[in-house]
Parts: sequence; C-alpha cells; structure tokens
Amino acid sequence: MKRTKIIDTQDLVGKEVNLYGWINIRRDHGKLIFIDLRDRSGVVQAVFSPSDTELRETADKLRPEWVVRLKGKVKVRPEKMFNPEIPTGKVEIEPLELEVLNEAETPPFALDTDGYEIGEESRMTYRYLDLRRPRLLKNISKRHEMVLFMRNWLSGMEFWEIETPILTKSTPEGARDYVVPSRLYPSKFFALPQSPQQYKQLLMTAGVERYFQIARCFRDEDTRGDRQPEFTQLDLEMSFVTQEDILNLIEELFTSLVKNICPSKKITQSPWPRLSHREARKKYGTDKPDLRKNKKDSDELAFAWITDFPLFAKQTEDDFFHGSGSAKFAPSHHMFTAPHPDDIALLDSDPLKVRGLQYDFILNGYEVGGGSIRIHQPEIQEKIFNLIGFTKEQKKQFEHILTAFTYGAPPHGGIAPGIDRFVMILAGEPNIREIMAFPKTGDGRDLMMEAPSEVSPAQLKELHIKIVK
Amino acid sequence: MKRTKIIDTQDLVGKEVNLYGWINIRRDHGKLIFIDLRDRSGVVQAVFSPSDTELRETADKLRPEWVVRLKGKVKVRPEKMFNPEIPTGKVEIEPLELEVLNEAETPPFALDTDGYEIGEESRMTYRYLDLRRPRLLKNISKRHEMVLFMRNWLSGMEFWEIETPILTKSTPEGARDYVVPSRLYPSKFFALPQSPQQYKQLLMTAGVERYFQIARCFRDEDTRGDRQPEFTQLDLEMSFVTQEDILNLIEELFTSLVKNICPSKKITQSPWPRLSHREARKKYGTDKPDLRKNKKDSDELAFAWITDFPLFAKQTEDDFFHGSGSAKFAPSHHMFTAPHPDDIALLDSDPLKVRGLQYDFILNGYEVGGGSIRIHQPEIQEKIFNLIGFTKEQKKQFEHILTAFTYGAPPHGGIAPGIDRFVMILAGEPNIREIMAFPKTGDGRDLMMEAPSEVSPAQLKELHIKIVK
Repeated sequence: MKRTKIIDTQDLVGKEVNLYGWINIRRDHGKLIFIDLRDRSGVVQAVFSPSDTELRETADKLRPEWVVRLKGKVKVRPEKMFNPEIPTGKVEIEPLELEVLNEAETPPFALDTDGYEIGEESRMTYRYLDLRRPRLLKNISKRHEMVLFMRNWLSGMEFWEIETPILTKSTPEGARDYVVPSRLYPSKFFALPQSPQQYKQLLMTAGVERYFQIARCFRDEDTRGDRQPEFTQLDLEMSFVTQEDILNLIEELFTSLVKNICPSKKITQSPWPRLSHREARKKYGTDKPDLRKNKKDSDELAFAWITDFPLFAKQTEDDFFHGSGSAKFAPSHHMFTAPHPDDIALLDSDPLKVRGLQYDFILNGYEVGGGSIRIHQPEIQEKIFNLIGFTKEQKKQFEHILTAFTYGAPPHGGIAPGIDRFVMILAGEPNIREIMAFPKTGDGRDLMMEAPSEVSPAQLKELHIKIVK
Repeated sequence: MKRTKIIDTQDLVGKEVNLYGWINIRRDHGKLIFIDLRDRSGVVQAVFSPSDTELRETADKLRPEWVVRLKGKVKVRPEKMFNPEIPTGKVEIEPLELEVLNEAETPPFALDTDGYEIGEESRMTYRYLDLRRPRLLKNISKRHEMVLFMRNWLSGMEFWEIETPILTKSTPEGARDYVVPSRLYPSKFFALPQSPQQYKQLLMTAGVERYFQIARCFRDEDTRGDRQPEFTQLDLEMSFVTQEDILNLIEELFTSLVKNICPSKKITQSPWPRLSHREARKKYGTDKPDLRKNKKDSDELAFAWITDFPLFAKQTEDDFFHGSGSAKFAPSHHMFTAPHPDDIALLDSDPLKVRGLQYDFILNGYEVGGGSIRIHQPEIQEKIFNLIGFTKEQKKQFEHILTAFTYGAPPHGGIAPGIDRFVMILAGEPNIREIMAFPKTGDGRDLMMEAPSEVSPAQLKELHIKIVK
C-alpha cells in the first residue's frame, strides 16, 4: 500500500492510510495509549485501545524516535479533543497494523525544542538528531526552494550554470588557500578556490556571455563569528554589460525571489536605495548600514546598493602575506576590478583617490555580496598589478589571465551574493550554522565525523610530505 | 540601445540592431569588406562598402577574435547570396556604427573546426579559446539544461537539494582520498569526499526522507582513460523505499529528461530491461552490455538495469590498502549495501554467495551509476565490517555511522548516476573532457592554470608540513 504523508491525513477522514515515521511522544493513559507519529511533513496522533491486544502490546514497547510503519484509519477526533496547534489536530489514527522498523536509544538532548539552548558541542556531534527539529528541517527546505528559484530565474534569463574546478591553483588573492598535496606530482599542490573568480572571467573570455554557479568557496581563515571554512555563493558573470545592467538584474532576481518564496516579507524600499561609499560612511558611519524602518519587525527587508568604493585601500601586513605586493596599497575589492573611467588619470597621480566600478549589495545591515565590472584589457590589468606592488613572480602566477586577455576578452562584470548569509537573514536566524546541514563548529571542526583527523603514515608517504611537529 | 542576439537578426529585417561579439572571419574583396560576427547564439554577415570611409577604415583593421560592438540595419541578402548553412543566411547587416572593444592576438589554433584534431596540450592550455568552438559551447549549455531538468523534476517529487561538506574526514572507502592539511590543528587533515555517501545516509537518519545533490566527488586515482580527479554525480537518497521504488523513480526521471531535453533520441526499450548480474555475465560476458539494436545509430539509447550483484567480491591488495580489512573479501559496491533478505543466513555460512540489494544503471554499454538499499541496523552494519575484516581501529573511523544508526535510522536507499558520463553519451562525445568546462588533462593537470603548482615555504610552515623529496 502506498505511503501517505502525515500532513495529508487531515483531509483523508474515513480513509485507510499507510504512515511511516518516528515516534514523537508516547503517552500511556492506562486504558488508552496515545502516540504522536512524526514525519517530515508533520505530526499526527494515533490511539491504541485495549481491545486489540496484539497492536497494543507493540505500542506499549514504543519509545521516542523509534521508526515505525503504521497502517490505520483516519477518524475525526471528539470535538473537545481538537488540537488547534497542529494542522492534523482534528483527526486521529485508528491503528490497523503497526510495524517497528528500527528501535532507538534515548537521544542525548530534547528534540521538541528549537535547540538554541543546547551547547554547540552536543548539537554538532549529533547533528543527525539536531536536524530532526522542525525548525532546522524547515530552514534546509527553504534554502532548497530559494536556491532552486535563483537557478530557474537565471536560466530563464539565458544564464548557463557551469561547474568550475575545486582542485585548482594557489594564487595570492586576499585570503589563505587550503591546499591539497599532489601524489602524482611530488612537491606540488592543488588549492581549493577562494571563489571561481578567475574561472568565470575565463568563461567570459571563452564567449559564454552569461554564467552562474551556486559555487562552493574555501578560505582558511582564523575562526570568528559566523565564518565557515567552506561557504556557498551565487557566482555570476556577464559580458557586454554596464554596472547598471548588473544592479538591475540582481535587484529584479532578489525582489522576485522574496515575493515568490517568502511572500510574508516586506521590502522597505523599492527600487533599492543606492548610496555611494562616501555617502554611507558619512551618513551612517559604516558601509553596510541597516536601513530598516522598524528594526523589531522580523519581516522587514531593507536592501540597498553601496557604490563607488575606492579601488585601493591601505595595505596591511596580512594583505602583503596573502596577496598584494610591496606597495602601499592593496585592492579594496580584488585586483580584477576596473577603475572608474573618469579616474584613470588618477592611477598615476593619486591611486588612493581612484574609484572602482564596484558595488556591494547590503541587507538589514549585512553585506550580502559584492561585485564589480572587471578589467578586460591586459595593459590595465598589468598596471594594477604594478600599483599593488606585485613582483615578477607574483605576476607570473596570474599569467594565464593576462595571456587570456590578449585573445579578445569581452568587457564583463559580475557579482557574488553569499547564499548562506542571505538565507540566514530570510530565515531570521542568528548564525549561518543554522541554515547549513553540516556546518563546522565555531573553531572549524566537524565533531560528528571527527574531522580534521589523522591520516596514515602510508598516505603521507604517497603524498611525499612529512608532518613537522 | 539594447543588445540584440545575433540569432535574432534573421527575424528583424528592416530594423536597427546593436550587436556585440567576436570577429569570426574578415574577407577583403577589394571594394567590399565582409565580416562574420559571432556571439554565443550564432553568426551573421556584415558588409562594409567604400562609401563610408570612417567605418571602412575601422573594418579594415579588424582581425579574427577581435571584440566589437556593431550597430547596423538588418537587410535581406541578394537571393543568390543566401547561405543555407546558417539560420541568419538570408540576411546581412548594413553597418552604422563600429566600435572595437578589445583587440586579439592570432589564436594558437583554428577555432572553426570541431577541435578533435588538435593536441590535448594546446587545447587545455588555451581552454578559454578552445571553448569558443560552437560544439563545446553547445555541450556546456546542453549540460546546463539536463542538470536543471533533473533538479526541477526531483524538486517536483519533493526532493530537497542539500549541500554536504567538501572538507570532511578520510575514511577507507575503496579509493584514495585527497587530503587537506589543517593549519589550526597541526598534524591533522581534512579529506575531500569520494562521494557524499555517509552524509546522505546521515540525512536520512535526520529525517530528510528525500535528498538529492548535484555533488562534486574526488578520487585520487592513477590516471587512465576518461577518469577525472573530480567528477559530478546526481547523488540521491530516499527513506522508506524498496529497490523497486528507486528503479522506477530513476527510470521515470531519465525517460522524461530524454523526451524533454533531447527529443531526437530514441530509447530502445521501455520499460528498461532488467538483468540479474549472473544473467548479464552469462549472456553477454559483461555486467554492462551494450543493448542497442543498431550500434551505428547515434540517436539510440539503450538503458537497462543490472540487479542482484554479489554483496562481496574477492579482495585485492588495493582494496586492502584503501578500504577493506584483512578478510578474503571486499564489498563489491560499498560496505553500506544491505544484504538480500533471503540471503542473510549465508552471511555466516557462505558470504561470497550473498546477493546485495544493489543495482547498476547502464546505457549503451557504459555503467552510468550504481545504487543500493542500505543497511540501517547497527548490528548488521557491524557484522559486515567484521566480515570484510575491519580492525577495531577501522571500525572506529565509522563510529559516527554506527552510533547514528542506534538513534532510529529509517530504512533507506539511493543511487548516484554520473552526470559527466551521462551527458557525454547524450552529446555523442568520446570523452568526458568534452562536456566539462575546465577538465584536467589525461595525466591529471590543469595546464591553463598550471596546477598543481608549488606553494611558498611560508604556506608549508603554517600547515606544519614539509616536503619529502
């Protein structure tokens, strides 16, 4: 007999149904045993009366989180027993067959709460139990809906989703790379991409014109706040466009997403306000102001654009180590951002005054993502490399890009909104760990799998590396 | 003025259009200069006559692969000049404005061929040029369409796409792991997943019920044939299902995909034939027979299922090193496959005779993907670990799975068709490198980025590792 989703029982009074799920609660009222059966869709009550000894005997053994198949007849509850808190609160199941599919130990923590009160260590060690909370399952399913919406909307605009490599090259791009030792090429390493930035620019050079990817990115940063070693962005790039085209496209996409997937949310201002970087700093003291009218309204979404960022920032020691060269300034977005055409002359006279064709998309005080129009001429790219003080060797690491640009690179630009942060804000969650299925802990570990972990001496030998204590 | 796609010019006779693209060919006929302008959508001819000196002067400089904006008026060609080979063959552009957006060096190889004749080294070094071939752009866009179709079809069946980690734990699963040294936890490593197998089983334990993911997988194998260090699979898992449910679902999905995305293809036999492993070997001498009626018909698709695989195979030295323990047999699919319920007793008496609830999906002589009903009871999982000779230590590496199964794991199963191989067959290509944007070479390198590459001594120091020559 076909499986029925528990949520559907509310409309199946009088029908026989075959339910599969987990025991949420068992209440023994002496004469009657009540169980609440839970699946992904909801919870429904079943009542075991003393008349059927065999069924009752099985029901008596049931404990929370046991897995069962329950065949039964859907009946209307006595009116005074209606439970208005759940969609199936007017019905109950009269059992006909009960099969235990798996037993369960008592979970290490309560599953019928939102879970915020439980320590991260427990939640992450038993993430497969933590995820059983309706709150988390809902976050995961909403994330799926939002991402699918983005994919379909962009495909409708003739974007192609294209997968780019995860095993790539270490280049000094502003953060620390994760690297992967090569077994076949001793002393060499792959790097995990900080973003598909170079690949997407090469795709534009290849004539793809409209690319996107829900892309995994990796940064080996010191752990803090809601950073994760791996995160996901909507990576997007277009050829033959202006900054205006990209801003309009993204605004349309996200506005349409909110309307379709989160219709209870209200966008504060439409079209989204646009502030120059200088204006934002002057008026709000920050380049990601929270522009909500009522910060207590959890349904308010205040989107805005910040534009006209300076192309360069003063260089820090970290910049030097992980990216820029020996000059006084580092790229404020990244080294592929095009200078504002009106400011080209300033590149020679006063680089810190040059504006970049760069834009950030902010939401409720968070930076969701940044983008820019890119340089597409090799001579300007080389000039930027010189300005940030790249050595010959550092330039050589980007030779493929400089070479590619000599073969007819089109004007292009793009953006990369962070999916995790966007979903987090729309779900009203305080941390991106709440909207990822298997996040790392705040200190960068996977407690469930116990990663990172030791590897065997044989593995290290094959990889031609040795651990230095 | 808004951009017009080149392909659309065929229907815009008499209209002014604004085209962006690459010079495909320039032909100087003395009086007239012809250029073919190319974008992602197609090619169109423009004719520069001597009357407009300024435009003609610019046109005279144009070389193949230069990037231009061309504003012009669409006109019907003289009838004897019709070109039946291209959709825009009845029209041509009368130029009004011509702007050079970027110049281009002469490409290192011809771009107007299919490219098969060119050596891999050149094609991969200049992949951004190689991809300009219409054949490759078409493969990339078809792949996008197929994958999007899978996503929407599965979402319609209430599957959720869920991202699982790329930085995970090294476990002995049958192939060699790529590992990533941890900076924060000296002497420890993450591993890149060979597949999301354990995560998807944990998602079933979490109550997700229907999961899929277009998932990147990594195997550090010796290079051969069309293997790639990273590849993509449609990873899928369901709870409360039988083998029959999964076979039917996948058959419906792929049949529907072919009908919708590749309507010129003909499926040889529907429903797909099912052969037991024993039958296939006996009748065809292989477990992936090519069941096409006419092997010369490039539009024929012969899908089939192979079932009833033996649960164990004889163990090889490689199995021992990379996965199994010290017993005589190794899992023939993987160690999470459920034994056939009729053969449970044989686990003790004659393990090599035990059939697994395992199935392979084959197409035109290729194995596209395998799957199985999984073990969901910890005691049976432990029994399998013992049978393949796992030591206490090896078992400890899978402790999270054994523990998870004690908390109410539902019966579940899944499958993982390879996307690269499937797209390759449907595109009629001889190698998966032809349907990936940026594949590695046959010997596992990225010649465009020059990866793998050396990293700096400072990076190695931070990672607490040393290279052993």
